[in-house]
Amino acid sequence: MNGATALLQTLLACDLDVCFTNPGTSEMHFVAALDAVPGMRALLGLSEGVVTGAADGYGRMADRPAATLLHLGPGLGNGIANLHNARRARTPVVNIVGDHATHHARYDAPLQSDIEGLARNVSGWYLESRTVTDVARDAAQAVAAAQAAPGQVATLVLPADVCWDEGAEPAGPLPRQHRATVATDAVEQVAKALRSGEPAAIFVGGSALRAEGLRAASAVSRATGAKLLAETFPARLERGAGLPAVERLAYLAEFAEMQLSGLRHLVLVDTRSPVSFFAYPGRSSDLVPAGCEVHVLCTGGDDVPQALQHLLDLVGGGEPALQQALRPERPTGALTGETVAAALGALLPEGAIVSDESNTTGLWLAGATAGAPAHDWLTLTGGAIGQGMPLATGAAVACPDRPVLSIEADGSAMYTLQALWTQAREGLDVTTVILNNRSYAVLNMELQRVGAETTGSRAAELFDLSRPDLDFVSLAQGMGVPASRATTAEELTAQLERALAEPGPHLVEAVVPPI
Amino acid sequence: MNGATALLQTLLACDLDVCFTNPGTSEMHFVAALDAVPGMRALLGLSEGVVTGAADGYGRMADRPAATLLHLGPGLGNGIANLHNARRARTPVVNIVGDHATHHARYDAPLQSDIEGLARNVSGWYLESRTVTDVARDAAQAVAAAQAAPGQVATLVLPADVCWDEGAEPAGPLPRQHRATVATDAVEQVAKALRSGEPAAIFVGGSALRAEGLRAASAVSRATGAKLLAETFPARLERGAGLPAVERLAYLAEFAEMQLSGLRHLVLVDTRSPVSFFAYPGRSSDLVPAGCEVHVLCTGGDDVPQALQHLLDLVGGGEPALQQALRPERPTGALTGETVAAALGALLPEGAIVSDESNTTGLWLAGATAGAPAHDWLTLTGGAIGQGMPLATGAAVACPDRPVLSIEADGSAMYTLQALWTQAREGLDVTTVILNNRSYAVLNMELQRVGAETTGSRAAELFDLSRPDLDFVSLAQGMGVPASRATTAEELTAQLERALAEPGPHLVEAVVPPI
Repeated sequence: MNGATALLQTLLACDLDVCFTNPGTSEMHFVAALDAVPGMRALLGLSEGVVTGAADGYGRMADRPAATLLHLGPGLGNGIANLHNARRARTPVVNIVGDHATHHARYDAPLQSDIEGLARNVSGWYLESRTVTDVARDAAQAVAAAQAAPGQVATLVLPADVCWDEGAEPAGPLPRQHRATVATDAVEQVAKALRSGEPAAIFVGGSALRAEGLRAASAVSRATGAKLLAETFPARLERGAGLPAVERLAYLAEFAEMQLSGLRHLVLVDTRSPVSFFAYPGRSSDLVPAGCEVHVLCTGGDDVPQALQHLLDLVGGGEPALQQALRPERPTGALTGETVAAALGALLPEGAIVSDESNTTGLWLAGATAGAPAHDWLTLTGGAIGQGMPLATGAAVACPDRPVLSIEADGSAMYTLQALWTQAREGLDVTTVILNNRSYAVLNMELQRVGAETTGSRAAELFDLSRPDLDFVSLAQGMGVPASRATTAEELTAQLERALAEPGPHLVEAVVPPI
Repeated sequence: MNGATALLQTLLACDLDVCFTNPGTSEMHFVAALDAVPGMRALLGLSEGVVTGAADGYGRMADRPAATLLHLGPGLGNGIANLHNARRARTPVVNIVGDHATHHARYDAPLQSDIEGLARNVSGWYLESRTVTDVARDAAQAVAAAQAAPGQVATLVLPADVCWDEGAEPAGPLPRQHRATVATDAVEQVAKALRSGEPAAIFVGGSALRAEGLRAASAVSRATGAKLLAETFPARLERGAGLPAVERLAYLAEFAEMQLSGLRHLVLVDTRSPVSFFAYPGRSSDLVPAGCEVHVLCTGGDDVPQALQHLLDLVGGGEPALQQALRPERPTGALTGETVAAALGALLPEGAIVSDESNTTGLWLAGATAGAPAHDWLTLTGGAIGQGMPLATGAAVACPDRPVLSIEADGSAMYTLQALWTQAREGLDVTTVILNNRSYAVLNMELQRVGAETTGSRAAELFDLSRPDLDFVSLAQGMGVPASRATTAEELTAQLERALAEPGPHLVEAVVPPI
């Protein structure tokens, strides 16, 4: 068989059966093999930002990788930003980049570029398949690498001739690595710090944000009086009624410093020591207060729930503090960040997956949805905007029986709006709420925070999205997604309710004031 | 003054006064300085593919660079594909990438990544500004590097603190490099080959595709009987009535081989030896026929028109063959690639700039427009789709008094459709014609050409853009661009005529059959 056929058979044998793609000529044998090898679901994205963001959303929700299939360096380039987010989320992704045939490279044809230079930027693992006899084994390695705890982007470069040459054999999956058990010493040291009576916080991220880890962390917090804090931008946070409530570290360094103020011990649980998102003149980048000792309980390669349970045993056991069921009233009156949040809190369905790229307008979302039925919350992990709608798309593919809410700021939406088309084609049950404040509101704020002074309107022009206004209803309808516009809280609630009740994608544009 | 102010003053002193941008927090001092330093025009793009493609279009038409301003690695990543096209076009671009403050880098904050690894991919020149006292000189060097003949992408990385620190002084422009005069020996060797009586072709690209070079090349062709051929994807080709007509080398290798068949001499004039765009099983990548000698008359760093004039003198002088004024009749009946081309040929305005990303449906365009009034033709130089609409945007900024026609395939349009919003905001006189055949038609063709066999519909699904249909009228209106749909040649002609007569952007969706 040819390389492409063996590659697809290998991916399927490794339990990888979803591929997001925008292919080109160099990927045609892979594409043709989709007809020869049943079982691989291939989904088209109209730009590679959709493709890579969807693979991230799929991986976060499925806990196993999807593949991408991208077209040479430029296709990879278009997908870099959302692969950057996937890297920060530590999502398992098998990122396949088609390349020219090996013998064609020396001619420097127009699409030739340094694929490796691009791929290394976002990939924890990188390999270029060199011959048809290697490709199946290379693919099995890529899947294993993507799944190596805690998860990463594994890039496999696939020259066209490696796909079209004959002589390949499929390979089987490589053995899964087990997560490491954290040494007793390390856990005991953390237990000692938490029992010291000094102000302490448990700072949880990664896999500690799933129910099992959160329950143990919450119980430790109750047993020791240590504060429980989650990382600012979780890849996936399980939350809602019946789960432990956890406060997230604030995005703004000045608020984060308040949350961390006075601590003598900070325990890291599958996350990194907190740093400021950006640098600001005269402010520290390191958010750990002076005199606070940082302890590492466990990292992403470890068995995180086990480490937390061990810690809980050492501090005397106990029960977690669970969030009660509690929804806000349906809001009325003007649409604002608060009433949008209340509407979402009032209506969030059981088992929802929320892709949150709400940015400034989303300030009230966490509070308004804290007591909604249990759900998953996915955030912008790497700061590269344009993640939310592709992420929602991939999450919906991974979890076809769960409703997906894509809460999306207008400026970020325009980066990868093409995701709507894939949602329409695949009939995905995604309800997109566009928070249209007609500006890059975050930049108005950041301009002042960095201490930049303006005396005129040229800077303000670059944050203004109101000339002309973006009409997201037209834009969505242009890609086959039913859409409506809400200008009051009552309209938003009614439109959201209808969108959530009907299967398939919908978009509601919520016109909100600038922050 | 701070670094940002000195930077802007330096760019203006270097005759760079247009900046395409989508800024973020790390670029806020640059943005604020726009109000402090009058003279820099800053234009917002809703994604970086628009920003970098517009800078390419501007540079091709202005013959001097615009700046970009991008937000760290992910912003650069989003702009890589169109910078790749700019690299292949050898367009002068000053690509400015904001970065974290120098002291922030070691914290590996969420947006941190290897900017240099990305930038090297597309940049002929790269520098990271390290201190506020360097930044003005660095900027002057970047402009000089971008303009070094024949032109290139020069990337300057700009840490936030280098912008906000005080103590900078503006710098003046560096002296321009002169293009080299080609040695007499080289010209004489080419003249000898062309006078040998053996079958020969003059293969012109780059700056040889402007009127002056084309006239000399055409006269050489007439004087010697050598065939005149232009590179397949010119950055900018001057053509139309009163200019020399020049046939372009075909995209499909099998047709290119026919054009080159039997040649004994191939003279390269500011272009590279022809190679196949992609590799195909069993076909040669090198398109130069066996027994054909390749001669280099001049390259991009040389004074190309002078070399051609010198060659013309050596072969005995003479006049070029000029294209006569000739337009097709206004077409009637069904919309097809041929009738679309006829409509454009019938209506192309004097002095138009054509951004051609028409792909398969555009097959008849070159013929139908050959005798239209003189115009510039810009093509997809690097094969990274999504170039056309940003390119048209930048060309319109460079040449506000010239009409711009953006002829765009549906699949490519969806990559960077956000360019329409910038056209609307800036009131640019761009008429976009979407060739909507509801497919990635080129891939249907390429699938067969690479010899890939399919037995079902999964492959075909990935080329199909009809489920759901894209409604480009809605999409354009959603971004503030007046739009209409044409389903017959008469409708297209009428709608085009109206769009061309009114100032500002318009879009006409031409519904055409798959090829």
